[in-house]
Amino acid sequence: MSDAPIRFAVVGLGYWGPNLVRNINELPGAEAAVVCDLRPEALETITRRYPAVRGTTSFTDVLSDPTIDAVVIATPVSKHHPMAAAALRAGKHVFVEKPLAASSEEAADLIGLAERLDLVLMPGHTFLYSPPVMMIRELIASGELGEIYFISTSRVNLGLHQSDVSVAWDLGPHDFSILRYWLGETPSHASALSRGCIIPSIPDVAFINLEFPSGTVAHVELSWLAPSKLRRTTVVGSRKMVVYDDTSSEPVRVFDSGAVLPNPETFGEYKLTYRTGDILSPRVEVAEPLYREIEDFCTAIRTGGVPRSSAELGMEVVRMIEAVDASLDAGGARIGISAPARVAA
Amino acid sequence: MSDAPIRFAVVGLGYWGPNLVRNINELPGAEAAVVCDLRPEALETITRRYPAVRGTTSFTDVLSDPTIDAVVIATPVSKHHPMAAAALRAGKHVFVEKPLAASSEEAADLIGLAERLDLVLMPGHTFLYSPPVMMIRELIASGELGEIYFISTSRVNLGLHQSDVSVAWDLGPHDFSILRYWLGETPSHASALSRGCIIPSIPDVAFINLEFPSGTVAHVELSWLAPSKLRRTTVVGSRKMVVYDDTSSEPVRVFDSGAVLPNPETFGEYKLTYRTGDILSPRVEVAEPLYREIEDFCTAIRTGGVPRSSAELGMEVVRMIEAVDASLDAGGARIGISAPARVAA
Amino acid sequence: MSDAPIRFAVVGLGYWGPNLVRNINELPGAEAAVVCDLRPEALETITRRYPAVRGTTSFTDVLSDPTIDAVVIATPVSKHHPMAAAALRAGKHVFVEKPLAASSEEAADLIGLAERLDLVLMPGHTFLYSPPVMMIRELIASGELGEIYFISTSRVNLGLHQSDVSVAWDLGPHDFSILRYWLGETPSHASALSRGCIIPSIPDVAFINLEFPSGTVAHVELSWLAPSKLRRTTVVGSRKMVVYDDTSSEPVRVFDSGAVLPNPETFGEYKLTYRTGDILSPRVEVAEPLYREIEDFCTAIRTGGVPRSSAELGMEVVRMIEAVDASLDAGGARIGISAPARVAA
Amino acid sequence: MSDAPIRFAVVGLGYWGPNLVRNINELPGAEAAVVCDLRPEALETITRRYPAVRGTTSFTDVLSDPTIDAVVIATPVSKHHPMAAAALRAGKHVFVEKPLAASSEEAADLIGLAERLDLVLMPGHTFLYSPPVMMIRELIASGELGEIYFISTSRVNLGLHQSDVSVAWDLGPHDFSILRYWLGETPSHASALSRGCIIPSIPDVAFINLEFPSGTVAHVELSWLAPSKLRRTTVVGSRKMVVYDDTSSEPVRVFDSGAVLPNPETFGEYKLTYRTGDILSPRVEVAEPLYREIEDFCTAIRTGGVPRSSAELGMEVVRMIEAVDASLDAGGARIGISAPARVAA
Repeated sequence: MSDAPIRFAVVGLGYWGPNLVRNINELPGAEAAVVCDLRPEALETITRRYPAVRGTTSFTDVLSDPTIDAVVIATPVSKHHPMAAAALRAGKHVFVEKPLAASSEEAADLIGLAERLDLVLMPGHTFLYSPPVMMIRELIASGELGEIYFISTSRVNLGLHQSDVSVAWDLGPHDFSILRYWLGETPSHASALSRGCIIPSIPDVAFINLEFPSGTVAHVELSWLAPSKLRRTTVVGSRKMVVYDDTSSEPVRVFDSGAVLPNPETFGEYKLTYRTGDILSPRVEVAEPLYREIEDFCTAIRTGGVPRSSAELGMEVVRMIEAVDASLDAGGARIGISAPARVAA
Repeated sequence: MSDAPIRFAVVGLGYWGPNLVRNINELPGAEAAVVCDLRPEALETITRRYPAVRGTTSFTDVLSDPTIDAVVIATPVSKHHPMAAAALRAGKHVFVEKPLAASSEEAADLIGLAERLDLVLMPGHTFLYSPPVMMIRELIASGELGEIYFISTSRVNLGLHQSDVSVAWDLGPHDFSILRYWLGETPSHASALSRGCIIPSIPDVAFINLEFPSGTVAHVELSWLAPSKLRRTTVVGSRKMVVYDDTSSEPVRVFDSGAVLPNPETFGEYKLTYRTGDILSPRVEVAEPLYREIEDFCTAIRTGGVPRSSAELGMEVVRMIEAVDASLDAGGARIGISAPARVAA
Repeated sequence: MSDAPIRFAVVGLGYWGPNLVRNINELPGAEAAVVCDLRPEALETITRRYPAVRGTTSFTDVLSDPTIDAVVIATPVSKHHPMAAAALRAGKHVFVEKPLAASSEEAADLIGLAERLDLVLMPGHTFLYSPPVMMIRELIASGELGEIYFISTSRVNLGLHQSDVSVAWDLGPHDFSILRYWLGETPSHASALSRGCIIPSIPDVAFINLEFPSGTVAHVELSWLAPSKLRRTTVVGSRKMVVYDDTSSEPVRVFDSGAVLPNPETFGEYKLTYRTGDILSPRVEVAEPLYREIEDFCTAIRTGGVPRSSAELGMEVVRMIEAVDASLDAGGARIGISAPARVAA
Repeated sequence: MSDAPIRFAVVGLGYWGPNLVRNINELPGAEAAVVCDLRPEALETITRRYPAVRGTTSFTDVLSDPTIDAVVIATPVSKHHPMAAAALRAGKHVFVEKPLAASSEEAADLIGLAERLDLVLMPGHTFLYSPPVMMIRELIASGELGEIYFISTSRVNLGLHQSDVSVAWDLGPHDFSILRYWLGETPSHASALSRGCIIPSIPDVAFINLEFPSGTVAHVELSWLAPSKLRRTTVVGSRKMVVYDDTSSEPVRVFDSGAVLPNPETFGEYKLTYRTGDILSPRVEVAEPLYREIEDFCTAIRTGGVPRSSAELGMEVVRMIEAVDASLDAGGARIGISAPARVAA
């Protein structure tokens, strides 16, 4: 590919669309050329702010524009598969807002399509580009935390209720993608309890238990109905523990604490001692994850590499959500998640 | 009963025993007469501090002392049933540290015995006498919070690992007794995920989901392995929400927030609005729960009434723990909890 | 004045300039017509973002443009007086970033000029338009807090060191304008201690004591050198107390606490009791203060009224800073602040 | 001195007295032999708890008891000098609750007396034995913080109003002794602003500015009238900064942050950069300061050494309070504190 800037079309100007346009325009080597939305007033807001951007209400128009290299799909989940598939078939690289698709079948179909056509397909799991999440991934991968015993995470806040999807489809992709990235494995089992408090048919609180092949267990609490914003993830390892709070000025705190079993041979004794140590809040780089994410997408387009937020990771996230739904359908039963199906190329 | 002080024997001088002795001695109308423990040095520490208290290593000695009105059992759980049963048979009122017994059969046996002998049997669910817990009970009972949608609670801290029981038997009685007291109902279903991180056979972290007949759902996270002390309970109601933090200088915070569904008839619309309101930290009375608890026990002895921490509530707590164990034994399956068996008198 | 929009020129495109341009453009009835800065690249950034805005490096050009109604001066303090005076003489309404001028003589001169020419002169004390500050003003004015005993405020943070002015001139206007607005009076005395830690000639930490005619005392701590951001103001009244923290999600907290002197006649007894009560975090409206401030400026232009951040208040703030400087020059001596000189019209 | 335990008399059973008795009794090599108070009920409470302790209402009785080695004076400040002097003259080592005396003359008199009689005289500046205070002293002494630019400290809380002394005499000794211990120097100048909010003649809030010979400046805010407990001390050094909060579970936090002046020669440039780094909460040993303090007193008695909380330090603290009073008497004027007078032996 030449050094010419990658020309983007951004489809869907809800919450994420305008942010994506801004970041694309700030990125050297990229430019937002077209925005597409059914609402003329949404188009006008953007084109007035960015006079060089063309607005259109026609997705066909976007697909048939030969100057467009990449399409960003920021529409409701149900539209992800048809629009992404059409864009891939039109020869465009595709970035899809999370979750990648509304089912693992749809996700596998998109992945197969992108592989056959040699195009980049990338889901927008933005948290994988967040400096605190990356730092904790490094703490885990380097062994500094030791064996990961368990992870407990809460993502709750009043508001942002979605009328079309459950809280698991809405907020779950955040935590599931982070867990997948940190641990490098997909859970083997999931079970869940949820309730539609406001609208009975739409779960707005969910308590999700996950078991990973390595032995790590995790709990994920999701809710649109909570009195105060809470983004707290605790990672308990055999050597150190980490608390990650997205909303804090100290987003990563490393606790040099743990339990020590002096002589593991004599389990009968169980003379445990506890090591309480220093607490470190490492300086975390300040960077806009969305910018880094678009940058990674562009690099993948230019080099043919695989972005950190890969389509395969996106499909694993969808499979995790499907397992949660299956557990809820079965009254909270523990659902096995099969090993990832090999995607047919 | 006369106005003579109630004379207590305290059996077991571990963590709770000395605190119980102190509170009994501070309570008008009660006196600690005898302490019993197998370790002479534990007896000596107490009798030196309280010269009027007699020490003995013989439980039989305690039972045969006709001047003793009430026996406090603060021994490991496995001893609760045999010692409480023997004390009841010796005609003593019995206060047992939580949990009431090691199984619901044992608990039912003790309850039947106490009813037949017309003696008070009371488990030590101290949190029911904690001012913040009582205040939240009142907020729920008065309807101020509206319908209780869900409750999420975390009780975690580094240390205090028990070698003989799981974290569910050790820490579960706190949250289970509070939930039972607040909601006035026993869950219909439980499911759980746990792991023995340090000693594989002893679960030291547990994620527990509970469903109540009224529709309320709850999540209880328990752990001996967490980087920082966390005692946070969130109660989400249809009108208001409450955050309870035992370790805070503002233990009860009432959030006048909620979701509003303007026209419930047209569910198809789902035009939710969110009401964000004031946050109130009501002044909470400062009082030692253990003192109030012993006081309630003495009142029950004098009046023949039922203490707030009743034997029936204690048995429900044991049944909840048993359901958690059953779920863990069944690989996390959702376990039904039958309606409370009527205790044979 | 007609209904035509008020046309603004914004002079100085440092930190505040671009924010002012954005808010002016978002305000109905106002438009940013011209931006002026000596740096062509600063002009280009703005004019690319707002194609309708004209850029110029010539202040004379701004003054001679008959279509400009109002000039915003966002330049270094030393330029405030000459530029504001020139703009007033050119018949423009003038908004000057805080502090109003580099001396009370300069401030009085500008005020006299504006009065003679019947133009609006307004200093940019933005905090007076911040919802928490307005709410506390109302709590004080309504008598809900009782007599104001004392106010203690800290405004510290690492960074933002200014090379041309002291921390008192840089950060002082925030707290001084808030105190003036809340209490409705200018201090009678000031004393201060400061130190130039990094550059000896430029004070970067200051501890300032203020005495008000009503008896209220205040302490203001200012620093560019502090380990963590701290914006905490405590207002202690005879009936209630308030903590204001600009950086918190609960910026205003009202404490229904106080000391009670049961029988003030028998001072010899001093049997004080303390009343500890509820703590309330009232819901505080979310609004951008800068928008409200520009709106108030426009209203003053249209109606001939006096904006909340009045030129007189701006001059009082300058007199308070001068008193601090005088105290520092006199080795920390307590400096009397004379009653406000009547501005010659 | 022999290995026989040091026998103590504790005079004054208000707040500190009973705590001192408990710690003396827990310390090997020390025993509380006599307690003295004018109120028989106060004596009875102690002697019932500690049957081996003898109670007396007669101070003369204490002085004439030849078996008493050391006297602890925990009476109101005005009694410190006469009682300590009498005890020294009776040949007893003396521990006096802070402040050492009601004036520097009185303090100097006691010091001279102790030196002549070769007895230990020690003021009870308990904070010098608090692990966080000791850790920060080491951080300063080792140079890890660099040059100490400034220290700002707040010690405020609702309640504990004293009817006989000002807030400076009541709370000032804490901060003044800590500053003296940390910096190893007495301020050269003090100025203060205070107000008697509740009782006009008794200052209950004070803002105190201090200047030290080394260039360090400090601010001390003291109040009995504040909505919430605040114990926050910020130490800003040229290399690192420390926040000390006595009430936090992380009492010491070290900020590896600072301002960097790349080329100090070209002051005209002032191109400062800020270094934001890690934040460390070192593990702080848990220990009861009062126990360590009594232990240090006993060691001084046995070895003839000087305790950390020395009489000289105690006198410097009194001189600092006197300077505050002098400043208040002079309307807030800046008061010079002369170099410590050499105590006549």
